[in-house]
Amino acid sequence: MKFSLFILFFFFSQTIVAGIPDQPVYKNKTAPVKERVEDLLSRMTLKEKILQLQNRACGKAGEISRIFNGESYGCTHEMSMNAQDCSDMYQKLQNYMLNETRLGIPVLTAAEGIEGILQNGSTIFPQAIAQGSTFNPELITRMTEAAGEEASVMGIHQILSPVLDIARELRWGRVEETFGEDPFLIGEIATAFVKGYQKHHITCTPKHFLAHGSPSGGLNCANVSGGERELRSLYMYPFKKVIAAANPLSLMSCYSAYDGLAVTGSSYYMTDILRGELGFRGYVYSDWGSVERLKTFHQAVETREEAAMMALIAGVDLNVDSSFETLEKMVESGKLDLKYIDQAVRRVLTVKFELGLFDAVGAKPEKVNKVVRSAAKVALSKEVADESAILLKNDHQILPLNLSKYKSVAVVGPNSNQTIFGDYSWTYGDAKEGVTLLAGLQQVIGNKTVLRHAEGCDWWSRNKNGIAEAVKAVEASDLAIVAIGTRSTFLGRSPKNVTSGEGFDLSSLELPGVQEDLLKAVKATGKPMVVVFIAGKPLAMPWVKENADAVIVQWYGGEQQGRSLADILTGAVNPSGRLNISFPRSTGNTPCFYNHFVTDREEPFDRPGTPDEPKGHYIFDIPDPLWNFGSGLSYTTFNYTGCSLKDSVFTEDDTVRVEVEVENTGTRDGKEVVQLYVRDKFSSVATPIQQLKAFRKELIKAGKRMKILLEVPVSELGLYNDRMQYVVEPGEFEIQVGSASDNIHFKKTIKVVR
Amino acid sequence: MKFSLFILFFFFSQTIVAGIPDQPVYKNKTAPVKERVEDLLSRMTLKEKILQLQNRACGKAGEISRIFNGESYGCTHEMSMNAQDCSDMYQKLQNYMLNETRLGIPVLTAAEGIEGILQNGSTIFPQAIAQGSTFNPELITRMTEAAGEEASVMGIHQILSPVLDIARELRWGRVEETFGEDPFLIGEIATAFVKGYQKHHITCTPKHFLAHGSPSGGLNCANVSGGERELRSLYMYPFKKVIAAANPLSLMSCYSAYDGLAVTGSSYYMTDILRGELGFRGYVYSDWGSVERLKTFHQAVETREEAAMMALIAGVDLNVDSSFETLEKMVESGKLDLKYIDQAVRRVLTVKFELGLFDAVGAKPEKVNKVVRSAAKVALSKEVADESAILLKNDHQILPLNLSKYKSVAVVGPNSNQTIFGDYSWTYGDAKEGVTLLAGLQQVIGNKTVLRHAEGCDWWSRNKNGIAEAVKAVEASDLAIVAIGTRSTFLGRSPKNVTSGEGFDLSSLELPGVQEDLLKAVKATGKPMVVVFIAGKPLAMPWVKENADAVIVQWYGGEQQGRSLADILTGAVNPSGRLNISFPRSTGNTPCFYNHFVTDREEPFDRPGTPDEPKGHYIFDIPDPLWNFGSGLSYTTFNYTGCSLKDSVFTEDDTVRVEVEVENTGTRDGKEVVQLYVRDKFSSVATPIQQLKAFRKELIKAGKRMKILLEVPVSELGLYNDRMQYVVEPGEFEIQVGSASDNIHFKKTIKVVR
Repeated sequence: MKFSLFILFFFFSQTIVAGIPDQPVYKNKTAPVKERVEDLLSRMTLKEKILQLQNRACGKAGEISRIFNGESYGCTHEMSMNAQDCSDMYQKLQNYMLNETRLGIPVLTAAEGIEGILQNGSTIFPQAIAQGSTFNPELITRMTEAAGEEASVMGIHQILSPVLDIARELRWGRVEETFGEDPFLIGEIATAFVKGYQKHHITCTPKHFLAHGSPSGGLNCANVSGGERELRSLYMYPFKKVIAAANPLSLMSCYSAYDGLAVTGSSYYMTDILRGELGFRGYVYSDWGSVERLKTFHQAVETREEAAMMALIAGVDLNVDSSFETLEKMVESGKLDLKYIDQAVRRVLTVKFELGLFDAVGAKPEKVNKVVRSAAKVALSKEVADESAILLKNDHQILPLNLSKYKSVAVVGPNSNQTIFGDYSWTYGDAKEGVTLLAGLQQVIGNKTVLRHAEGCDWWSRNKNGIAEAVKAVEASDLAIVAIGTRSTFLGRSPKNVTSGEGFDLSSLELPGVQEDLLKAVKATGKPMVVVFIAGKPLAMPWVKENADAVIVQWYGGEQQGRSLADILTGAVNPSGRLNISFPRSTGNTPCFYNHFVTDREEPFDRPGTPDEPKGHYIFDIPDPLWNFGSGLSYTTFNYTGCSLKDSVFTEDDTVRVEVEVENTGTRDGKEVVQLYVRDKFSSVATPIQQLKAFRKELIKAGKRMKILLEVPVSELGLYNDRMQYVVEPGEFEIQVGSASDNIHFKKTIKVVR
Repeated sequence: MKFSLFILFFFFSQTIVAGIPDQPVYKNKTAPVKERVEDLLSRMTLKEKILQLQNRACGKAGEISRIFNGESYGCTHEMSMNAQDCSDMYQKLQNYMLNETRLGIPVLTAAEGIEGILQNGSTIFPQAIAQGSTFNPELITRMTEAAGEEASVMGIHQILSPVLDIARELRWGRVEETFGEDPFLIGEIATAFVKGYQKHHITCTPKHFLAHGSPSGGLNCANVSGGERELRSLYMYPFKKVIAAANPLSLMSCYSAYDGLAVTGSSYYMTDILRGELGFRGYVYSDWGSVERLKTFHQAVETREEAAMMALIAGVDLNVDSSFETLEKMVESGKLDLKYIDQAVRRVLTVKFELGLFDAVGAKPEKVNKVVRSAAKVALSKEVADESAILLKNDHQILPLNLSKYKSVAVVGPNSNQTIFGDYSWTYGDAKEGVTLLAGLQQVIGNKTVLRHAEGCDWWSRNKNGIAEAVKAVEASDLAIVAIGTRSTFLGRSPKNVTSGEGFDLSSLELPGVQEDLLKAVKATGKPMVVVFIAGKPLAMPWVKENADAVIVQWYGGEQQGRSLADILTGAVNPSGRLNISFPRSTGNTPCFYNHFVTDREEPFDRPGTPDEPKGHYIFDIPDPLWNFGSGLSYTTFNYTGCSLKDSVFTEDDTVRVEVEVENTGTRDGKEVVQLYVRDKFSSVATPIQQLKAFRKELIKAGKRMKILLEVPVSELGLYNDRMQYVVEPGEFEIQVGSASDNIHFKKTIKVVR
């Protein structure tokens, strides 16, 4: 027995190593991928095929042969391993796959990588929501290129990001994993994200296809209510852009239903739209358990077998739960046509060939030490944090802090000495990885300024006992920095006090716990109050807007989060982030995204009235956000001095080119995000009152002017008409150029003709 | 000139009166309607045709010839006239139309009639939301038959109700005009409503077609986000039922867009669905201004002419704004095909023939005095109010009040001495029409019980100055009745303090103003506290649920509202209303309708946790409502003693018959609403966790048992599948029988087979 196995192994390894004349086509590196796939497929047993459609967790390196037992799977994963161990293991595993399975089919290795690689010791970059607020796609490509290098030496081929969901339902716990509320911004940042990883032959997995981010009531996984037009105009848009611009080789199906149809079980969504309309040509990866949940959650079918068949036929190729193991008997019993198996196997194998898995073992254990969490990568993480923070208020230029005036500073609040990385990081706040705000301030001004610290309260409880201590610290100091916000976690681990993250949804958008009580107590001291809002989502903070002297938003800023904030507070870094999600005025004043339909507001009613003269929608409030999309201040000031278009009449094939001149009128260098919005003045179907269609972040030196070119292809100005055809309707469009959606400096009208 | 007019008049009146051989076909009462329509159409000029598609307000009786100038219009209206004047005028007007216009075409006379006829002096019945909470369709038919008799003697042919919108978006100001949150209940009550008016040859106008009641953000007229399946399963359902069961001859298009497509301008919605799928065969009436708003609000077209053409072609037949006056030149210039005009005219004329307008003048001025607001009708209004009030809490049977124990009662709160009728009543609270709660109590117990009164606060302002006086009244009394809630208005007239009604939307569902402060101050006295919530919508009142000794909900209860409440509080009437809209726990804990999809909740997460062990959706709360659909107590108790089905296996053509035995185990007669819900255990698309499919309200004498038969056609158990076909899927369904959606006494499983 042993002898014959050895012979078999010898034979196969020979064909790989020697490249002898009868080498199978699929092992020929120079053959076209299609031919290699077909050749390999023709050699596979039904069981081998079905294993290619399944994931198997790989555990420790020493257990490979026990776990895999000579069989190759489609995919594997192992999370939260030490980076070096991961690299060692994946090297062994891939060698095992290539050399010790019958056909030598390598396995795809998947990892979370939303904010860096989810293997212990990897560089922790800012969370997706912070990546979005940089408004800097080039920076995000550099970031994922760096993360990709780490993944690459670990032997990882597939990253289970980015999230292309649109943050319109702020109660949802996963808002922090999105790039924001704007489909265009999401498309730009996501494309940049995917391209960075691709430089290391790693495929990203855009998710959650489709529309997962707007669940009813904000309840994770609940049905998404929406129409075909909304699907195409809004939810599909980022997928369409990323697939066209970056051709990701995998994509993740979602847990939820859209208009009542479970997406993971729907060939309309997963095949007709995804492949037919969007031209996706990679393979579809299920979300974890999303196939079995066709039975257990959607109750769309009565058995696991039916769930597996439903998903496979719909277009799920690689299933992470175990239900695809039932497919073999379904084929054998004649209930499932083999063509669906072959189709999915083709897609998985094609990606394995295209990523080069058959031709080299990716992992490079010897390079882990040098590559992973290198000083340059940590610096890059901070650079992303620096560019992501958003300065929303700065009365009397209180920031950057005048340290000769404020000789002692109280640093209080639940987020003052915690690191919050956001869901899907390999570690979480409790581990005290990374630099907290307090630690950052100690690094930067600890030697010359007295820093007093007290948390005051936690993120969650109604316990006010700590507030007095915080007030005492503030009273003893010249100024208070109050760090409030949310606490995230990783996949429900260490969920203590969690108020954001997957599965942790809010029914109220007010500040949780007694954080507002803490703020009011600090305010009552009369000391200047700088509020640092460290959170995974916007919350309703009208009191903060009214009462803080300055407000900085930092979405979870990666491992250098505290140092980045300290540099911003003290002026070493000039903030340049812009709001990628509008802040609501209250829980009930939602949705409040900027790009609402023209008909979603109705002047002159949209003004609050008085008891004697009420006005209407809403009676006690206005429907506008507290802070609007695109907002963000700088320590310098910018003046928009010119805006010119070469043409005013365009056809569908043209590109609108707008040259904007911006002057830095302050005394500091700074980055401005020039934003271009479009409004379709008359449209046969509802269109947004304004839509971001171009932006450009540029460093402008103090006192200098810069000309910035913004380009919008006219084809971007289309809509899905009453026959659901994408058309650019002739007529007038307003081009708005400004520094925020509600701060437009120039308006120009263009005309589109046939 | 005068002479020739006289000759003309003589000629036409002859043909009508004498029935001479050359009488035109359209004047022949015995000819089929279709022939009469075609004959008349063939005689009409383009201008005459287009006038049939327009409304003209008629003003005073003496001005008829000036206003109409010898021309017949499609429709007319005059609101808030004295009933007698209205009858006189419409008699004159119709005689004028029949005798003094070229072709003698009568005019349709439209009036609001949601809670009685909107002409001064008519009986004011409870608002639609209260009609829904009666769960008594037979009573609603009696109600609209009474209102219809009043309309009939005034010469009114068309009632601009009922509202079939579904109350899922509680911020919307018009929730009070709906029958509730459940499509089945709406369908049953609306059918009953339409049939009552039909007994007097009056057509109702179901509205607002389609899906108008779920505007984004609750902002009136905003876009409704939803899919094709949701459209059919939910929003279309009541229209489908009412059209099939009652064949209304008119229907109103809505202001809003669905999935971005302005409904009033969409032939898909207004013709393909309305006529093709739903089989509607009457004429479509625009909402006021909804056609012009295709330009001014939707910005779907650039001119009034285009708006008019768009709406006409879509399927709007009779336009209440003036934009159809542009159609003549559009036809003449060749831009509009005459066939669209003819089609709409045919529809309008058909209704005029079918309602008998050509054959008799409806108004009977001599009967107004006897018919309008007769004692019987006022008593009927009270009966509807009696059956609509919902007792939600009654700790220690504090109600009905023991008047030997409570010798003095404080009646406080902003709704304690006001009548609130709801939007579209001919008068409003300020006018002091009808009986207030205080007045009702004075009538019933004023001679033996000391009643103290102080408002305490208003509905709106933050002014707490009045609370002390209310507390003083409570402290001096044995018990407090606190009447809180909302204030409505009529079409924005007298809008002072308005917190509900058309155009008056809320961004917060908490009690407006300082009403909760008033409640807390009353509670602090230690006196028993009965809360009477008089409102047009549910608000978030967890404190009230926790702290009141008893809670009664009265949706605006018509002119006898205070007397009805007094009779309920003191026990002359045993409450029997049931909640037709679930109460939310908070503003953010919405939507909270009972019939959510199976996937809209996810056990075991749907339980609140602690900071040490948070649970998930939602972190701080549960997604369930505070009080659930179908809830409502009685002064007696009911025991469900039996539930039997003859069969357990059914085909699509069968009817499920469930016999329920209920015993009144108390000492008072009382009405119970037996409710039957269905759950589809496995379904290819998302279906509700439970759906009301039958109910029956029955008076059961104290100590008696009653067998109640509930029937559900199996065809009611269908869904719109992935190909948007309506099918009943074979498999198991759970039949739930109970006294509320969350109080199910029996569960039975049936099987549907092909």
